[in-house]
Amino acid sequence: MPDAEIIAVGSELLTPDKIDTNSLFLTEQLNLLGIEVVRKSVLGDDRRRLAAAVRGASAEVVVLCGGLGPTEDDLTREAVADALERDLVFSDSVCREIEARFRRFRRVMAERNRRQAYVISGADVLVNPRGTAPGQWIENGDRVVMLLPGPPGELKPLFADVCVPRLRQKYPPVAIRTRFWRVAGMGESTLDELIAPVYTRYTNPVTTILAGGGDIQIHLRARCATAEEAERLLDEVTAHLEPLLGDRLYSRHGEPIEVVAGHLLRERGETVSVAESCTGGMLGARVTAVPGSSDYFRGGFLVYTDAMKTELLGVPPEMLEKHTAVSEAVACELAARARAKAGTSWGVSVTGYAGPDGGTAENPTGTVFIGVAGADDVEARRFQFPPTNRELVRTFAAHTALDLLRRRILRIGSSGLFFSRPS
Amino acid sequence: MPDAEIIAVGSELLTPDKIDTNSLFLTEQLNLLGIEVVRKSVLGDDRRRLAAAVRGASAEVVVLCGGLGPTEDDLTREAVADALERDLVFSDSVCREIEARFRRFRRVMAERNRRQAYVISGADVLVNPRGTAPGQWIENGDRVVMLLPGPPGELKPLFADVCVPRLRQKYPPVAIRTRFWRVAGMGESTLDELIAPVYTRYTNPVTTILAGGGDIQIHLRARCATAEEAERLLDEVTAHLEPLLGDRLYSRHGEPIEVVAGHLLRERGETVSVAESCTGGMLGARVTAVPGSSDYFRGGFLVYTDAMKTELLGVPPEMLEKHTAVSEAVACELAARARAKAGTSWGVSVTGYAGPDGGTAENPTGTVFIGVAGADDVEARRFQFPPTNRELVRTFAAHTALDLLRRRILRIGSSGLFFSRPS
Repeated sequence: MPDAEIIAVGSELLTPDKIDTNSLFLTEQLNLLGIEVVRKSVLGDDRRRLAAAVRGASAEVVVLCGGLGPTEDDLTREAVADALERDLVFSDSVCREIEARFRRFRRVMAERNRRQAYVISGADVLVNPRGTAPGQWIENGDRVVMLLPGPPGELKPLFADVCVPRLRQKYPPVAIRTRFWRVAGMGESTLDELIAPVYTRYTNPVTTILAGGGDIQIHLRARCATAEEAERLLDEVTAHLEPLLGDRLYSRHGEPIEVVAGHLLRERGETVSVAESCTGGMLGARVTAVPGSSDYFRGGFLVYTDAMKTELLGVPPEMLEKHTAVSEAVACELAARARAKAGTSWGVSVTGYAGPDGGTAENPTGTVFIGVAGADDVEARRFQFPPTNRELVRTFAAHTALDLLRRRILRIGSSGLFFSRPS
Repeated sequence: MPDAEIIAVGSELLTPDKIDTNSLFLTEQLNLLGIEVVRKSVLGDDRRRLAAAVRGASAEVVVLCGGLGPTEDDLTREAVADALERDLVFSDSVCREIEARFRRFRRVMAERNRRQAYVISGADVLVNPRGTAPGQWIENGDRVVMLLPGPPGELKPLFADVCVPRLRQKYPPVAIRTRFWRVAGMGESTLDELIAPVYTRYTNPVTTILAGGGDIQIHLRARCATAEEAERLLDEVTAHLEPLLGDRLYSRHGEPIEVVAGHLLRERGETVSVAESCTGGMLGARVTAVPGSSDYFRGGFLVYTDAMKTELLGVPPEMLEKHTAVSEAVACELAARARAKAGTSWGVSVTGYAGPDGGTAENPTGTVFIGVAGADDVEARRFQFPPTNRELVRTFAAHTALDLLRRRILRIGSSGLFFSRPS
């Protein structure tokens, strides 16, 4: 299969607050055809730079979007003609189409719209019923270069209705199948050391690893002649990976940890409540980000100050005095008392130093205790997250709390997790 | 001034649902230095293509981000070395830094992290205190090539703290002065209609408007020969804008609403608590995202189910029966009871239908009641946020709750706010 390169054209797309989103749509459509996107670029309305970019593109399929308008700064036609060393030819029939379009809206075509009737010599004109700028399809040796209008409302239907069938005919597609796993309680480099010996043996499927906030995603993507062959390859690789990941693999279809924990609760008809100190509501917000979470989430307690831990949940002041709020004892107490007070099957607590200030020699910034209380017992674990910034510590803490809940529900141990430290 | 090209590296950025956002930050920072971005690209982890892209870049400043990790597919170092025809040299001192970082987190450096200690011959190492991958700065003829880590939490401070001063020294800028305002309780297009007649009269300063989640940012940027001249221009424009915005302008230095509300509380020695239903902790999480928020935030109640509203806060079941949980009466009750129970100066409540399901004919999905209780009285307002998706409704609700708190503290009315609807 060919590779593709996407070039979005428009100086406005090079400002700090504009994003090219056409390329996401194009990538999706191309991937469905089995065509991989190897580069995407944004360039301004600059004829010389644009021509150089087209000349320098190494992919067989080059898709340009934007810069086909009627104004002086719309230069994509000229730039591509330069790059392919072809002429621009005025097309009477395209011009008549544009005039007809204006007539339909009871308007007269402005003189400058005649620019839009210029076609690169040898190009197929792609009729664009939603705008004045037609697309162009140029076959140049074994390359295909497409010029498409920039407005998403014109580009998307034109690409889907006209370009996709043409591409499918030119490059009969292969089958692409994917797997999307998630792993918790492991560092990215540890994970990679563990599984690289397996996945580096395969160039197909391609394996990609993404990490952030305590969560790791593993994406596997197989391209084969048939769907069966692609699935077989994925089964083969994943059969090697699964035993390496063990109970750290928490999701086989990409669901985030709050969805997985929610499923487990719902399946069992169980409920959960939270007691949050340093996360201040982030854990509850994450649990309730899932539609339907009222099936298993009853509520919780934001006990940000020591006084609130005592007043709302009845944590004895002597205990806070003796152990401080950031301790195993208090984490256990918070979890157990939240559970009892909310009348839920499980209680989860988070207490720690999120930073930038706070912490002690023994428990520096980034130290977080997470407690989980169930019907039988309550247990808390200590974590030392990288104290990079407050939001990151809190994100790690909320994520890890959900993973600990999952482990307790499934009766899996939780020793040796990433960032965990003995108290 | 030189031009710049940004190259984001990572195969995951070439999928249909990932966007490179680092380049927006980099563009903003570069523009502030007077450096224009002429091309930005996304490439996969492909050594040959990456090297070709670096070789083909025509800008004087080339910024690469990503692909500096420890794994086999992190190839940016190798690709740039290829492009510049330089060697990669193992740096003992960088390796020691990485090892020390691991030690600080009481972990042992994995063998593969040694990859991150390879430096392009002649490069300056840019110390990255937030991650294991250091940046690199290479001067090659009249070009500067920078290698930066991909995670935004590492890239942003490294670029702002280390690269910007270096660029400023190499290319002394003209004087640039900015203003960063924030506005709440207004729609983006209403705002634009209101202030466009003023700001479109000026090409200097340049005005940019950004909006999301109920919040609007107004950025003004003046470039002049001297700082005084730039400040004078900004003063002139802002003097015209201020009366148009009135009490909707809540921030003159870009502080988000939770920081502004926090300041007001701290100044007055006042405190706040929350009672959250549909936001499930998001409001508390936002208040406590601010370091030092324990000065004014005591805690709160996550009362996600009706039963919890009664059990934790004592809302009478008859009231829930009569008005339903999503009502002005219950919002007032929640705010007043949270305030009383937590013993705070203010109580803020949120109850609504975040979607995708739920809602009634009278109060469809997106309806949220927000209550604020003070010493004198309690008041709730009804909002109808766009029911686009659950997270957006919740984000709007948390943001608006903070704005209502600000208004109550400052004794400003809150009628006619964006999305508000009479009960």
